[in-house]
Amino acid sequence: MDLAGLREAVEDVLAGFLAGKASSTEDGLPDLAAPLRRFVAAGGKRLRPLLALIGWHAAGAHGSARAAWHLAASLEMFHAFALIHDDVMDRSEMRRGQPTVHRALASSHHQSRRGDVPPAAAEWFGQAAAILVGDLALVWSDEILHAGRPSARQLTVVLPLLQTMRTEIVQGQYLDLYTTGCPTPDTATAWRVIRYKTAKYTVERPLHLGAALAGADRRLLQRLSAYAIPAGEAFQLRDDLLGAFGDPAVIGKPALDDLRAGKHTVLAALALQRATPAQARELRRLLGDPELSAAHAATVRELFTSTGARAVVEELIAERHRGAVDALDDSGLPSAPHRALRELADAAAQRLA
Amino acid sequence: MDLAGLREAVEDVLAGFLAGKASSTEDGLPDLAAPLRRFVAAGGKRLRPLLALIGWHAAGAHGSARAAWHLAASLEMFHAFALIHDDVMDRSEMRRGQPTVHRALASSHHQSRRGDVPPAAAEWFGQAAAILVGDLALVWSDEILHAGRPSARQLTVVLPLLQTMRTEIVQGQYLDLYTTGCPTPDTATAWRVIRYKTAKYTVERPLHLGAALAGADRRLLQRLSAYAIPAGEAFQLRDDLLGAFGDPAVIGKPALDDLRAGKHTVLAALALQRATPAQARELRRLLGDPELSAAHAATVRELFTSTGARAVVEELIAERHRGAVDALDDSGLPSAPHRALRELADAAAQRLA
Repeated sequence: MDLAGLREAVEDVLAGFLAGKASSTEDGLPDLAAPLRRFVAAGGKRLRPLLALIGWHAAGAHGSARAAWHLAASLEMFHAFALIHDDVMDRSEMRRGQPTVHRALASSHHQSRRGDVPPAAAEWFGQAAAILVGDLALVWSDEILHAGRPSARQLTVVLPLLQTMRTEIVQGQYLDLYTTGCPTPDTATAWRVIRYKTAKYTVERPLHLGAALAGADRRLLQRLSAYAIPAGEAFQLRDDLLGAFGDPAVIGKPALDDLRAGKHTVLAALALQRATPAQARELRRLLGDPELSAAHAATVRELFTSTGARAVVEELIAERHRGAVDALDDSGLPSAPHRALRELADAAAQRLA
Repeated sequence: MDLAGLREAVEDVLAGFLAGKASSTEDGLPDLAAPLRRFVAAGGKRLRPLLALIGWHAAGAHGSARAAWHLAASLEMFHAFALIHDDVMDRSEMRRGQPTVHRALASSHHQSRRGDVPPAAAEWFGQAAAILVGDLALVWSDEILHAGRPSARQLTVVLPLLQTMRTEIVQGQYLDLYTTGCPTPDTATAWRVIRYKTAKYTVERPLHLGAALAGADRRLLQRLSAYAIPAGEAFQLRDDLLGAFGDPAVIGKPALDDLRAGKHTVLAALALQRATPAQARELRRLLGDPELSAAHAATVRELFTSTGARAVVEELIAERHRGAVDALDDSGLPSAPHRALRELADAAAQRLA
């Protein structure tokens, strides 16, 4: 059980599934698998599938490996759905170093009609088509799961967890959407977004799903949660720092997106808490300005640093990382999944992208 | 087995499910069940659930009624997903006599922030939030299906059909989206949209799903298709006529929507085929004009009529209706489902809304 090997199994399932979908298009129906294939092939950390497979191993890897690989791949397909819709909602231009799905579809629509589609109509087409591509990814995530032929007993434990995960992430996205654009000093809401958008969706639920597939009991699920929540929080806090201070060439998207959107992050909330009245006015004026210039972004970064918010978030990351590692050491997990989870916690806290 | 009784069973499942969702909201998560509850309560023909239950009865109504009702209700929840996203993609203002979900969410967002959200930002919020509400409806349609506790054997036949239906409707929507805005005389494409967006999705697949749940064999599914495809085509052709000529107060949405969008319907394709060069230029200029005035809409209607396209579509509806009725008479179905399907075919062909 090494991370590279697990990752390869997931890539094989995803590539095989999408190749089959392309060849089954008939009767003049559009090949909607193509944009999904490009999106999936463009990379990504495959964090959720890896965690599902580690969870499966942590619970003894009982049952068919085929079912476990397909569950893992279905989480990645579900994530493609979430990201594609998220990019439409955030009007993002780039993802994984490439144009987002709605941008790419808008460009190709404009070109395929030889320029007689007005730019605004092509934009709209791109957004609408990306909503459909995302819908299809969600539909296909289910199909991949069932293609793994899980047993009836496995489905009984996996499906309710999957339903909970799906409802939570949609609610978390809504909370994110609702609070974006007007950051406040309210850290409780920012933590709630982290909890549902990342800690549960990205770490806890995938671990639980894999473990449940192998027949884990409630105690094991609780021990996995004790690791997952702080590890997921560390992951998202690092993401927020990268969104403000990261290198666009490394993170694969413009560094201004989060600042221009005015994401209600713990970082922004802490900065507003610690700011002088003049600094707070400046932050409120700049965060969420869709036209934010590079110079003004530098001002925001400077305020995140000078208020001490950046340093506090670094401390919070270190504390969450320590919490995850301690929980892991207390978990009594077999050494291979233990090692893999330690590796992921370290990467979540320290990564550059 | 009467249609009113079947409908009541579906309403009960939907209302019970959504009531349970509202009360389970905790931890400051938004109650996304509320907009869905309003949408579902606003009405609709419940055509897909009714057809699923008729299919179930046609195949002998074997297995638990609970599973059948939940399958039927899950199709209605899936349809809510499809309509909510469709309205975002079409920028529709009204549905079922009420503001569409994205319009309602934009208004309430604007009001809840006491007017300090600029109108454009509130519009965007409404669209993004409606994407999420639609996503949730899709996720919950699965949950309703499984809440009916279908047997493992039932799931084996139902899930692949459901997957096919979901993929087909998304592809049909894409084809619709791709061809909207520039109607051509190409009727083949218009028929393909009808086939996937309506004949299969609205009639054939729901009948198949209900019948498969009761253990139908391939022969019965084929006999149901022989009815479903022409009945579904008649339904959509009538829909296209209502979209051009219907009474807005009766159909629950502005009569200009389809004309302003420039939907590539069989009606529009036939009108372009039969038009003089001058009439065709006029049609091309007006169809798809987002600012189309009431006077210009009257011109389009006049052209649909004077080219004979409207009369041809009426003939096509009558012919499809006859085809569906003949298939039904040859089907050897028990009298109750036979009578119900006849009633629905008549309503599909002759309805006013």
